[in-house]
Amino acid sequence: MRPMKRLIQFEDALRIALDRANPVTDKEKIPLASSSGRVVAEDITSRISVPPFSRSAMDGYAVKARETYGATKLDPVRLRLREKIYAGSVPRKAVRVGECSEIATGAMLPKGADAVVMVENTERDGEEILISDSVHPGQNVSKKGEDIVPGARIATIGELLNPSKVGAIAALGISRVTVFKKPLVAVVPTGNEVAEAGKPLKPGQVYNINSYTLSSVIVANGGEPRVLGIVNDSVGDLRKVVRENSDCHMIVFSGGSSVGERDVILDVIESEGSVLFHGIAVKPGKPTIFGIVRKQLVFGMPGYPTACLSNGYILLAPVLRRVARLPETVPMTTKAKMAKRVVSTTGRAQFLTVRLEHGFAYPAFKESGAITSMAFADGYIMIPADVDLVERNEEVLVYLL
Amino acid sequence: MRPMKRLIQFEDALRIALDRANPVTDKEKIPLASSSGRVVAEDITSRISVPPFSRSAMDGYAVKARETYGATKLDPVRLRLREKIYAGSVPRKAVRVGECSEIATGAMLPKGADAVVMVENTERDGEEILISDSVHPGQNVSKKGEDIVPGARIATIGELLNPSKVGAIAALGISRVTVFKKPLVAVVPTGNEVAEAGKPLKPGQVYNINSYTLSSVIVANGGEPRVLGIVNDSVGDLRKVVRENSDCHMIVFSGGSSVGERDVILDVIESEGSVLFHGIAVKPGKPTIFGIVRKQLVFGMPGYPTACLSNGYILLAPVLRRVARLPETVPMTTKAKMAKRVVSTTGRAQFLTVRLEHGFAYPAFKESGAITSMAFADGYIMIPADVDLVERNEEVLVYLL
Repeated sequence: MRPMKRLIQFEDALRIALDRANPVTDKEKIPLASSSGRVVAEDITSRISVPPFSRSAMDGYAVKARETYGATKLDPVRLRLREKIYAGSVPRKAVRVGECSEIATGAMLPKGADAVVMVENTERDGEEILISDSVHPGQNVSKKGEDIVPGARIATIGELLNPSKVGAIAALGISRVTVFKKPLVAVVPTGNEVAEAGKPLKPGQVYNINSYTLSSVIVANGGEPRVLGIVNDSVGDLRKVVRENSDCHMIVFSGGSSVGERDVILDVIESEGSVLFHGIAVKPGKPTIFGIVRKQLVFGMPGYPTACLSNGYILLAPVLRRVARLPETVPMTTKAKMAKRVVSTTGRAQFLTVRLEHGFAYPAFKESGAITSMAFADGYIMIPADVDLVERNEEVLVYLL
Repeated sequence: MRPMKRLIQFEDALRIALDRANPVTDKEKIPLASSSGRVVAEDITSRISVPPFSRSAMDGYAVKARETYGATKLDPVRLRLREKIYAGSVPRKAVRVGECSEIATGAMLPKGADAVVMVENTERDGEEILISDSVHPGQNVSKKGEDIVPGARIATIGELLNPSKVGAIAALGISRVTVFKKPLVAVVPTGNEVAEAGKPLKPGQVYNINSYTLSSVIVANGGEPRVLGIVNDSVGDLRKVVRENSDCHMIVFSGGSSVGERDVILDVIESEGSVLFHGIAVKPGKPTIFGIVRKQLVFGMPGYPTACLSNGYILLAPVLRRVARLPETVPMTTKAKMAKRVVSTTGRAQFLTVRLEHGFAYPAFKESGAITSMAFADGYIMIPADVDLVERNEEVLVYLL
């Protein structure tokens, strides 16, 4: 058995991995309708005016503003009705002195008119309209190009799309948009003790959990998981996996990163590339490897499911987000009082899952092998490496799961 | 032109719509690997023990605990090595008095042993192992069923899956899970003035924005959009759409809900079902209709893109989340000081988009027709109906977009 040489502090491990996280450069063109949450890979500049013509912002009457000056309910101005202008149609007649045209919201303003009086401030009398409020030139009119002028940059490389930015691109008549590809992440469960779901367990085996938890974290953080079948703990098989998935941006192994004789991930990364750290001062999650093989980031996560998933949250997710060009997550947190005293391992940061009840945080951690340590928890607290005790009733920041 | 009879307060409109939002009951079976974020539709109970056998939680030596009592570095206990037990294999030999077996993390504990001594507290001397620390019975052992016992409920109907819950289900050897279907939402842009992306604009036309923004909001809130082509403002065509999409949980029209003569959504809902409100005291977004046709929720959103999208955020999203059985969103907010005085319309709540700079919120709203009112904003503030003024330097809560 080979003990780890030296543990690295968690903050240092994260920094080293983030430093190597080169943002993805591959692009793809996708339908605009499903582009919210993706990152724009090309500047988008408008070639048109939005709106493409001056239009009414209200249902009402298109008028020459100066003719309405001084109009009141008691002393309305009378204008002769020229026509009705519907949205999507083109006015056939110009508005001349003493005239107005009925106009719908969004309809093109007729020639001669420079303002719109809201329908609420009018009354109809045969072929005449009584205007009871004055409007200034431009009132209730959206001018041509008021929203977007030709040449305006609507989206910039690296910008994250949200529904309103998608809307601004749609305003240009664009229905497909070039975005950065989602980083492809190979998920590789290893270990002779791991069995695939649906198959009966042989003695000594447990079901594969890590592929499912890691895939979920990868999808939630902008990656595209490529889940491989369970691979044996052999240098040959693992090396083959690394070589055959060289199109992936990242490879995440789980299992086989501890110090047992048959833990061979380390050997594979060392022989194919270089190991940047092996062993993090964090509990759970100590037996974690990170290395570079050619341009790929390779993680060796612990096989134990809670250790693997806690590393997924605190280490894999931020690194993947940087590769995916997504902003850092702002974690959902809440404050609580620790329900009981917790003694932590000095020198190692601790990821402690908790259940929340009436403002108190109850430790939910059983052991790093127990997935219910996390599945039945509401969140977790991080106890720094230099803190060895959290007192009962002490306020803690709980990161919600 | 038909003016709206009476505006309803925004809070009342939301309550009425939420009251009619019956949670979806249709189910589907999907791969567990892509189930995070979905809602479980069947209780899941374990038939197995996890772990299925007592196993080592450490790399080390399986021992009879009582033989290690009093062992120290200076006065170690010597045990004869029986065999090596790898994870995934079955021990061939029992540990007898005076003996131990080398054991890997996750490997099955051999008969006769009741604890594991960490490798760090041992030293090898030929076929003998020197144990330099005492362990108590059960130490460094995960007992059979310690994580999950047969009969334990792992997921409950209505529970939202996250990565760790997905992991707990995977621990049972389950690879497919029954979840509630995503509510199907028909998105129907209306209006003769709206043109489809990619086609040249005719005079008087603007490009379709609302299908794109509404779809984005629907996807982000657990729905599945069915985007239809642009429909003409005719009672016949709109009625046909309602009837042909009766398999949808919701129908969201945009455009045609104002008071123009050719605004026919109201007529269609009235003739096919019932209108629950028409006109909300909110700015922008006043000309909004909500009704029920058979079991379907039908929204008529304003055609103007910012009004349509702001209603998408504050009205459609919470209603859809209830139908989808998703928890209410906890909005991302930040506090800022208002950079300038804002006068609001008394009697109407106002959704005011803002840009954030150095802790100040600058109004970004142009008009409800301008999508850049929102696309170039960082967030929005809600000014209640009974507030008509926000002073410069007043602290405001900004909902981030």
